[in-house]
Amino acid sequence: MKSTPAPATPRSSASLFAPIARDLEEVEKILRRTFDDSRPGMDRLLAHVAQYKGKRLRPALLLLTAHACRQVTPTHHHLAAIVEMIHTATLVHDDVLDGAAVRRHVPTVNALWGNQASILLGDYLFTHAFHLASMVDDGQACRIIGESTNRLCAGELHQISRRGDLTLSEDEYLDIIDGKTAELTACCGRLGATYAGMTDEVIASLTRFGRALGIAFQIADDLLDLMGEETLAGKSLGSDIEQQKLTLPVIHILNDASPSAADAARSILTASGNHKREALVPLLIASGSLEYARQRAVGFASAALAELQCLPPSPGRTILEALADRVVHRDH
Amino acid sequence: MKSTPAPATPRSSASLFAPIARDLEEVEKILRRTFDDSRPGMDRLLAHVAQYKGKRLRPALLLLTAHACRQVTPTHHHLAAIVEMIHTATLVHDDVLDGAAVRRHVPTVNALWGNQASILLGDYLFTHAFHLASMVDDGQACRIIGESTNRLCAGELHQISRRGDLTLSEDEYLDIIDGKTAELTACCGRLGATYAGMTDEVIASLTRFGRALGIAFQIADDLLDLMGEETLAGKSLGSDIEQQKLTLPVIHILNDASPSAADAARSILTASGNHKREALVPLLIASGSLEYARQRAVGFASAALAELQCLPPSPGRTILEALADRVVHRDH
Repeated sequence: MKSTPAPATPRSSASLFAPIARDLEEVEKILRRTFDDSRPGMDRLLAHVAQYKGKRLRPALLLLTAHACRQVTPTHHHLAAIVEMIHTATLVHDDVLDGAAVRRHVPTVNALWGNQASILLGDYLFTHAFHLASMVDDGQACRIIGESTNRLCAGELHQISRRGDLTLSEDEYLDIIDGKTAELTACCGRLGATYAGMTDEVIASLTRFGRALGIAFQIADDLLDLMGEETLAGKSLGSDIEQQKLTLPVIHILNDASPSAADAARSILTASGNHKREALVPLLIASGSLEYARQRAVGFASAALAELQCLPPSPGRTILEALADRVVHRDH
Repeated sequence: MKSTPAPATPRSSASLFAPIARDLEEVEKILRRTFDDSRPGMDRLLAHVAQYKGKRLRPALLLLTAHACRQVTPTHHHLAAIVEMIHTATLVHDDVLDGAAVRRHVPTVNALWGNQASILLGDYLFTHAFHLASMVDDGQACRIIGESTNRLCAGELHQISRRGDLTLSEDEYLDIIDGKTAELTACCGRLGATYAGMTDEVIASLTRFGRALGIAFQIADDLLDLMGEETLAGKSLGSDIEQQKLTLPVIHILNDASPSAADAARSILTASGNHKREALVPLLIASGSLEYARQRAVGFASAALAELQCLPPSPGRTILEALADRVVHRDH
């Protein structure tokens, strides 16, 4: 029930985020201040991790939510920096978990300085995020963020406990990505709305918006790990299959495709050796499993869009709508 | 300037902690509630880490400080559980860093379920600790604890950045253990006093008490890694040498013993192969380096004792005095 026509939306994230460019620059300043540590062992690690700078999706989501609520405050800038620090901490630890060598076009911390430095650097980012959150207000920010990171860690643990298990169901997969990815994007919606002084109903809607967006994003991200180009992605692909993490198209082919397609997929997944991605992709296309997963991502993006109806039409809301479209139509 | 004679102090930690036995039981209840997670992947990990239960030194230190300030509150119980959770998180991550196989007489999480589960379990404990801290009050607890964990992580990173460097000075060593160990014990003193409503001066004294106690404890712990018996310690010993982490007796022999003793120690440390501990210990005894480190630990314990003069004599203060004595005279 959109009452204003959507303006043409720009194609790149940078131009999509133009209305919050100054706010994002404030976030960068806070991150630079936090990462300005000249102590032995810290300087080179923090300088390196600053290069991980990616799309800043989570800070942008939080700030755009505040923007759509028509009130962006300095507290929002701090909260946006905090969620980015938490996200970066999880990336640094994930790279150890996955034995990843490249992240956002640069070698990972673990590849350069080993797992020990990576584990401690992740811890360092976590604690600095919480400390910064404790400075924002009377403890509410810490409570909201702590709730989300509790769930995030449980989701990651759930995922590794089910690795290699070909009986993983779609519901369980959705529960895992709800924890490991969507919980933090839900938190961005919640923080953006809460600190813009919205009502409980609007906060709940924008929390659900962030959650549905995060699930759509993760399904799309898992599809890129199967189908993407490494040069665009800036990291190794195919790692989910190598790590025996089941994602939506694979779950679909095992459970909902023809018995022969399911058997063929099972053979590839349980075989030894590499290059499983190359063998599996044609099967996933032929069985419609890839298209099924794409449609599920689009469905979650639509559910996210619907939640935005809690807000009156505004340029800010239009950008959030474009963002929901963007997360499921991207090539990196 | 003690004005009351010290009563005979009991020899075991359990009896030393008898006056706070009920408070420690409250802490255990809070920990059990936090660890009661039946989600897939969580239950067995949390059940296992509960077995790491050690001396509960940090919760006891916090509660005894409150006891000596004559006010133990439910907030103290929560804070004591929080510092124990943070300590346990660092143990779980340390075991990955050190590749340790045994901790407190049971196999480590990394030995049983691999590094991935250990990294995520440590993160899970960190975030639950911060979330619990955010529930305690208006953010002050999060700020105090966040400051300490910031410094703790920086200390650990400093330590690994200097691994294998035989030029590490005593000052740098003390700075490292001040971060990785004494910061959290200082935090226990600070929290115990703060939440008992003490003045800023008393809080500062009891923070310094916790810091000096932590340094004494870590020097003594490092000595046990050299000289202790594995059956008593409940873990592998000699790991500092194997990991090329320089500790106080080794720093002393390299810098302050005779050139021949220093050269002999350097040869052992830079040789390949194992059993360095067995080769090094006789040298450290003969050079007086072991005794030097022992005396440094005693000196920090004395400095801790002196800080207790800020409190009037009481049974609580007497137990803290006994604790300062205990940390430097222990065999496990």
